[in-house]
Amino acid sequence: MNYRSVGSFLGRILLAMDVFMIPALLISIYYGENVAVAAFMGSMMGIAVLGGSLCAMGRGEAKGFYAKEGFVCVGLSWIVLGLVGAMPFRLSGAIPNYLDAVFETVSGFTTTGASILNNVEALPYGLLYWRSFTHWVGGMGVLVFLLAVSLGNDKSKGYTVHILRAESPGPSVSKLVPKIRQSAAILYFIYIALTVLCFLFLILGDMPVFDAVCTAFGTAGTGGFGIKNTSMASYSLFARNVVTIFMILFGINFSVYYYFALSKYKAIVKDEELKLYLGIILASVVLIFINTWGMFMNTGEAISHVFFQVASIITTTGFATVDFDLWPNFSKSVLLILMFVGACAGSTGGGFKVSRVIILIKNLFKSMRQLVHPGKVEAVRVNDTVIDEKTLSNTNTFLAAYVMIFLVSCFIISLDGLSFTTNFSAVAACINNIGPGFEQVGPAFNYACFGAVSKIVLIMDMLIGRLEIFPILILFSKSTWK
Amino acid sequence: MNYRSVGSFLGRILLAMDVFMIPALLISIYYGENVAVAAFMGSMMGIAVLGGSLCAMGRGEAKGFYAKEGFVCVGLSWIVLGLVGAMPFRLSGAIPNYLDAVFETVSGFTTTGASILNNVEALPYGLLYWRSFTHWVGGMGVLVFLLAVSLGNDKSKGYTVHILRAESPGPSVSKLVPKIRQSAAILYFIYIALTVLCFLFLILGDMPVFDAVCTAFGTAGTGGFGIKNTSMASYSLFARNVVTIFMILFGINFSVYYYFALSKYKAIVKDEELKLYLGIILASVVLIFINTWGMFMNTGEAISHVFFQVASIITTTGFATVDFDLWPNFSKSVLLILMFVGACAGSTGGGFKVSRVIILIKNLFKSMRQLVHPGKVEAVRVNDTVIDEKTLSNTNTFLAAYVMIFLVSCFIISLDGLSFTTNFSAVAACINNIGPGFEQVGPAFNYACFGAVSKIVLIMDMLIGRLEIFPILILFSKSTWK
Repeated sequence: MNYRSVGSFLGRILLAMDVFMIPALLISIYYGENVAVAAFMGSMMGIAVLGGSLCAMGRGEAKGFYAKEGFVCVGLSWIVLGLVGAMPFRLSGAIPNYLDAVFETVSGFTTTGASILNNVEALPYGLLYWRSFTHWVGGMGVLVFLLAVSLGNDKSKGYTVHILRAESPGPSVSKLVPKIRQSAAILYFIYIALTVLCFLFLILGDMPVFDAVCTAFGTAGTGGFGIKNTSMASYSLFARNVVTIFMILFGINFSVYYYFALSKYKAIVKDEELKLYLGIILASVVLIFINTWGMFMNTGEAISHVFFQVASIITTTGFATVDFDLWPNFSKSVLLILMFVGACAGSTGGGFKVSRVIILIKNLFKSMRQLVHPGKVEAVRVNDTVIDEKTLSNTNTFLAAYVMIFLVSCFIISLDGLSFTTNFSAVAACINNIGPGFEQVGPAFNYACFGAVSKIVLIMDMLIGRLEIFPILILFSKSTWK
Repeated sequence: MNYRSVGSFLGRILLAMDVFMIPALLISIYYGENVAVAAFMGSMMGIAVLGGSLCAMGRGEAKGFYAKEGFVCVGLSWIVLGLVGAMPFRLSGAIPNYLDAVFETVSGFTTTGASILNNVEALPYGLLYWRSFTHWVGGMGVLVFLLAVSLGNDKSKGYTVHILRAESPGPSVSKLVPKIRQSAAILYFIYIALTVLCFLFLILGDMPVFDAVCTAFGTAGTGGFGIKNTSMASYSLFARNVVTIFMILFGINFSVYYYFALSKYKAIVKDEELKLYLGIILASVVLIFINTWGMFMNTGEAISHVFFQVASIITTTGFATVDFDLWPNFSKSVLLILMFVGACAGSTGGGFKVSRVIILIKNLFKSMRQLVHPGKVEAVRVNDTVIDEKTLSNTNTFLAAYVMIFLVSCFIISLDGLSFTTNFSAVAACINNIGPGFEQVGPAFNYACFGAVSKIVLIMDMLIGRLEIFPILILFSKSTWK
């Protein structure tokens, strides 16, 4: 293990955090929130000292940055992000318990949106902004951001490709252009453009500017932190519909927008993942609409609420306009399936990813045909491209790891004695980066009901979900540290 | 598709069913149960006509019995077993609804033990015997039985190996001896010997002879149908402990007994699956014992009940001595994990199988080491044997199919509007061939709460679980019928 390189990498991440905190500090100053200002100043100074020393320590950085170092950097960076990003919450006293503050921050960066706050509206503006900003920067990837702005200087190719691979969701990395750093920059450009568009439409929907900024951040990162206790319920119908549409847009593979910009419409129309993603959304809306018939005032209301909730769950955002825990069990089952399916690969959404579902189903059919006709040789194709054996086997290993982590997590948090549905949906909502689950962690409640051990497990689940398992799991392997 | 061969195969299965029903008929005659006698006579005549005509139709059987035909035969046979085995229940009026009768019968043959009966004790002895006998013959495999007694004449090698593979649980077929038919005979010999031993011990525990026969059948097949409304709660402590021990014994890979008979103790001591299986049982007992502290009268009672329940669930038997749905949530979580782990491969138990869990975990660690050291080539070994890539990939595909079928099943049965825990545990209990679940399908309740569509889904889940997915799934594939 090349400790010096890893240390200097973490140092740079810390310094970037300081830069990220500047707007939050300014907002706190603007609103005259003295406690928050002090908390941000204190945090930033602490982080600067820590980051500076790590950078200095790693100076004259040795060679030897391989896959191992890449994974460890990504895993550790995200843990560090959670640990230091929580400082303003703790120092300001807004979240008196440090573990709770870390939970809230990791929930932010991983775009989960699971909260332990009973009264969000009591938070100062600076902290509300910081909380929502973590969604935004976590959505596309903090390290990818550093790559895009070239802070992570592009010395070794292996370096960057491992980071993009570890932070970008999906079964395979889609490099838009041969150069990784350029790809990262294009991704962030699309991301910023769409976020600004979302913000402008929200302003059109009579949303106050501060609310529109935070909501745009939460929507873009498919995060789900609301700045109101009722999440999105208090906003206008227009604003809610804007959020619905943008949630769906941010759940699409960003390469689709790149193709769009290049006028490669054929590639978009043929995209199997996109078609299935939109198909699942439509089918779910129809099913829930029929099942919840009569629960809403009129058809327009019903369609708006159902569309919002379906988009919110499949994109793993987690905003709510209604308490869907009160819906009939069948509708809740539809939502539960959506929780696991998740958004498209290469989007800011979490979950298992539609493309992985496609690969698994196609592979299953292939295996069945091969059982029946043992001699036949066949390949799995998605979008006319052959999926190589390694991706197939990785997808399967991913599922196996996912299922095992899921069961072990449910098992440990059940020690708190909450109901099975609460535990199951809490783990599902955290590992898929959604936010709200059912019963005790439903949209009307929050994660304050869990004990410290469970919170740690759920924090790990959020990180595991966001980084797609291995960068975190590898930190616990003996062979990594040899 | 070679329809003639498949037809003649099904015909022979039907004729075997008639033979299986003879003891049940005699018992009904002995107890003077006229309605049951008539029901058995009617069923047997109908089955004989149907079976005879199918056999006659398939006479002069064409060549061409390949993997496809093997799988189809296994899948269809088990569906036919359920359909015709249900006739005595329906004809006697004991179960007035035919779908319910099929549910009960499939639950029997698949050794699930999920019941739709509110009052088991109202059943005539003949039917109680038949119900328990389906567990016994289903446990080791109906087709394997026919193989052992050579009804399925050993013309083509492919034929028999496909049947043994499809009916014997586990990631790979363990042929005890090179000749398949001999292997089947040895398996059944061990099975009968252990069943008789179990029966004798139960008699020693003051159990009435009829009860001992039915309980021995239910234990040997890891089925779980009780002939009392309180399952095993009314029997003596000694009898319950006997059942505990034999459930654990029947959950062990039968090759262990074969090695024992050959004095190959070294192979037994080294068996990783056996060690993990026993380890999981012990750990679960300790955890639940601590968690349920104070719920039982004294420590002896507690250990006996906890051991019984752990053994009952991990072996997927499903007998109950207490209503474990009243246990604390953590204990229920332990049981839920056991439901999925299941027993050892090559035993009569269901579930995912301990050996598959071992393969998945070892493969996961291998994948993690390979991510960190991409150049390293490594193989997965179990019991010092390298697991080939095909078995690894099959195990992964198995998990993927399992998860997808699980989710789809939960989704469909949620249309009945029952609670999430009920639906989830019902599917878990059926696909893992256990029987009781939690809440509405807990040990104190039964599956009568579900509608017709859900019952059909659960019937398919039981068959899918028992036959390890593919022989049933293949019936729904277009390419099978081309």
